[in-house]
Amino acid sequence: FDYDGPSMKTEVPGPRSRELTKQLGEIQNVAAVNFFCNYEESRGNYLVDVDGNRMLDIYTQISSIPIGYNHPALLKLMSNPNNLSTVVNRPALGILPPENFPDKITESLLSVAPSGMTRVQTMACGSCSNENAYKAMFIWYRNKERGHTSPSNEELRTSMINQGPGCPDLSILSFMGGFHGRTLGCLATTHSKAIHKLDVPAFDWPIAPFPKLQYPLEEFSRENAQEEARCLEQVEDLIGKWRQKGKPVAGIVIEPIQAEGGDNHASAEFFRSLRKIASKHGCAFHVDEVQTGGGCTGKFWAHEHWGMDDPADIVSFSKKLLTGGFYYKDAFQADQPYRIFNTWMGDPTKNLLLSEVLSVIRRENLLVEVNRSGKALMNGLNELQAQYAGILSRARGQGTFCAIDVCDDATRNNILQKARNKGILLGACGDRSIRFRPALVFKEYHVHMFLNLFNDVLAQI
Amino acid sequence: FDYDGPSMKTEVPGPRSRELTKQLGEIQNVAAVNFFCNYEESRGNYLVDVDGNRMLDIYTQISSIPIGYNHPALLKLMSNPNNLSTVVNRPALGILPPENFPDKITESLLSVAPSGMTRVQTMACGSCSNENAYKAMFIWYRNKERGHTSPSNEELRTSMINQGPGCPDLSILSFMGGFHGRTLGCLATTHSKAIHKLDVPAFDWPIAPFPKLQYPLEEFSRENAQEEARCLEQVEDLIGKWRQKGKPVAGIVIEPIQAEGGDNHASAEFFRSLRKIASKHGCAFHVDEVQTGGGCTGKFWAHEHWGMDDPADIVSFSKKLLTGGFYYKDAFQADQPYRIFNTWMGDPTKNLLLSEVLSVIRRENLLVEVNRSGKALMNGLNELQAQYAGILSRARGQGTFCAIDVCDDATRNNILQKARNKGILLGACGDRSIRFRPALVFKEYHVHMFLNLFNDVLAQI
Ligand code: FES
Repeated sequence: FDYDGPSMKTEVPGPRSRELTKQLGEIQNVAAVNFFCNYEESRGNYLVDVDGNRMLDIYTQISSIPIGYNHPALLKLMSNPNNLSTVVNRPALGILPPENFPDKITESLLSVAPSGMTRVQTMACGSCSNENAYKAMFIWYRNKERGHTSPSNEELRTSMINQGPGCPDLSILSFMGGFHGRTLGCLATTHSKAIHKLDVPAFDWPIAPFPKLQYPLEEFSRENAQEEARCLEQVEDLIGKWRQKGKPVAGIVIEPIQAEGGDNHASAEFFRSLRKIASKHGCAFHVDEVQTGGGCTGKFWAHEHWGMDDPADIVSFSKKLLTGGFYYKDAFQADQPYRIFNTWMGDPTKNLLLSEVLSVIRRENLLVEVNRSGKALMNGLNELQAQYAGILSRARGQGTFCAIDVCDDATRNNILQKARNKGILLGACGDRSIRFRPALVFKEYHVHMFLNLFNDVLAQI
Repeated sequence: FDYDGPSMKTEVPGPRSRELTKQLGEIQNVAAVNFFCNYEESRGNYLVDVDGNRMLDIYTQISSIPIGYNHPALLKLMSNPNNLSTVVNRPALGILPPENFPDKITESLLSVAPSGMTRVQTMACGSCSNENAYKAMFIWYRNKERGHTSPSNEELRTSMINQGPGCPDLSILSFMGGFHGRTLGCLATTHSKAIHKLDVPAFDWPIAPFPKLQYPLEEFSRENAQEEARCLEQVEDLIGKWRQKGKPVAGIVIEPIQAEGGDNHASAEFFRSLRKIASKHGCAFHVDEVQTGGGCTGKFWAHEHWGMDDPADIVSFSKKLLTGGFYYKDAFQADQPYRIFNTWMGDPTKNLLLSEVLSVIRRENLLVEVNRSGKALMNGLNELQAQYAGILSRARGQGTFCAIDVCDDATRNNILQKARNKGILLGACGDRSIRFRPALVFKEYHVHMFLNLFNDVLAQI
């Protein structure tokens, strides 16, 4: 079903892409557009563009394509006339769910629920997933503070005019380099790049340092443990400071691997300690698996690598899960209706697709494949970095969720462009990293194909 | 194609709905669930539930179903194998759009662009539409302030840590009773019900009174004009106050008819004056048409009733438009990529459906139908309110976007329940209003069917 390799006809973007970019430029800002795609012709790991170029896709729509393009199982699913009605009648799930909704959620999302969680709320993207997770934590925190009694009239009155005590001065603690979305609540916890945040008002919420580890991790365990201890100390410090400021930390939000911020890893021990600190101070612990979830780290959830029975209070997801949403512990269910609510509350078409994606992951043993490909990819990156020591450094990864640093920004961008013209589509992250985000169907032979082509590119630099 | 009337087998929710509600209750908060639906069997204006009850739907999934259930044109569209790939391959539209994207947008969204606007950014729901519209206004405002020069290093540095000047203390002016969504930025401008806002931190942004008019509008024109003048004065006052506070108003956001807040209307003159005030003070003017857009007021956009060539700087939409997004004047296009950005930037499947919905609206002359049905509905409501003067009051509306008040909350809810058991599905809004939100295919004979059944319900109260 897959093509047998890249096939390039023009430079990328080619003439047709450039023409379409100009056309779209009359309607919106197109400065981020790479090229235009022919999704009908794309298959498996290969993305085809409008100039007939076929590229091995190791970026997969910002890590959001779980099992490659046009997977036959998904095409079959959506050509089943029984599913037509789901696509054309999008319901308001919070008030008028379809008959199969509980079953669909049980067989899909609940079948992969994180340890200790039996509840899930669907949403439509990573941002509304996190925004609503934050709200759930604020509601939980205030209910706890007021001893689960009814809110006072003063609270009800002031909430309507954005004032305390109804709209309390609570905060979410986030980490420098973190990314949790771009709507205003999420953005207040996002610290990836200045251009993502510039000119947008933000809440005065605490920001802890994320460990800056040295790679390979196993060679620097003592230094890295020290660095992690420093960050954990800062977390406790900030929780105290913000309490004193009158803006207590209701929750801590963190990615298992900081993705947009540059693929920054931390040890399982770090996350276990952080989880303990959160509990000790009465803060909720929210693990954002929007980019790490869905199998790409070699386990379905990246937090499974921590080996905990009770890893989190809230786990949010989207991207490869196609729908958005968040799992939560029972205590985080809002006490009343319409507190966590919006018109659509997700999209049953995405639940349908997700259900089939999960079957394919099981049927095709894709987590095993990810581990195999991931190992080959890391080995290859380590070799390349030894060979091109002046250019590459800090190869790191879990499963196929890998990254490598380039000596500087300009060289990084040069490499990305040259690779694209050779038929390899890669993404950037952080200041000078390249990130690898293949689909779960990226097999070991795709890794070798990539490594060969990448080697050619590096030889030219 | 439509059924010929409601058909009721059980009370609503019936036994099957209650069973499913219990099942779903193990997974999430179900206190807002009305009943479970059989979307396959639903058609046109009729929603069928899992107990075989068929109801005339005058609420349409919180006003988000444009042309009724299972419209043959949409079924045909989605059973076309050429469209399969769009459903199974959701792209990151901001970086890798499909070939037909500029054309699809041109033939759909741009074909109904508000006066004076040629640019549109797609988003996925009402909340991200408004959140990003606010960001566009903040960016515009700061670029203006800094004279369109590059941001300083100080701005770049502080933006990363949520501090000024990088994250400036700008505000959005909103109106009491307004609803613009529930993510944290939107929620700071939403003032519908306390339970929507309680326990969630908010920005200290100015909130102006929305005119509380007397109905019928034409009988109280002097009083209403005074009330509107009072509100406009307050707006100017608040703009001055917040500037003095060091939190200047970058934009004003308003619905043409406040929907969730209780179907509150204001005159065209009010909106024209408000638009002028915004310009005078250098604030952007954002019209939120998420609920009013798409034809239900008898014009495609409710703001067309104001008769202006330049009604707004930004117009946001979602719901009946199926996709979300916002139109904007050229000056509101972000100067750099990745400022208004997220993974998906909308959903081409929804663009495809929207394109067909717009064709149907034209082909079936649905705006004409809305005006005809709307007139019949308003006449009927006026008669009922004369007949049941102790129960009903303040009938009001534009097109089929109508509402009526009930003497108190308990009676309102009693009426809604009784109506539902007779096969009429209605929605509430505000403290004691009933809102009418039929699809655009709600014809004059549906109005009469509704009025007869509603009369029966009222006779029993
Ligand atoms: S905020 Fe998630 S879809 Fe709009």
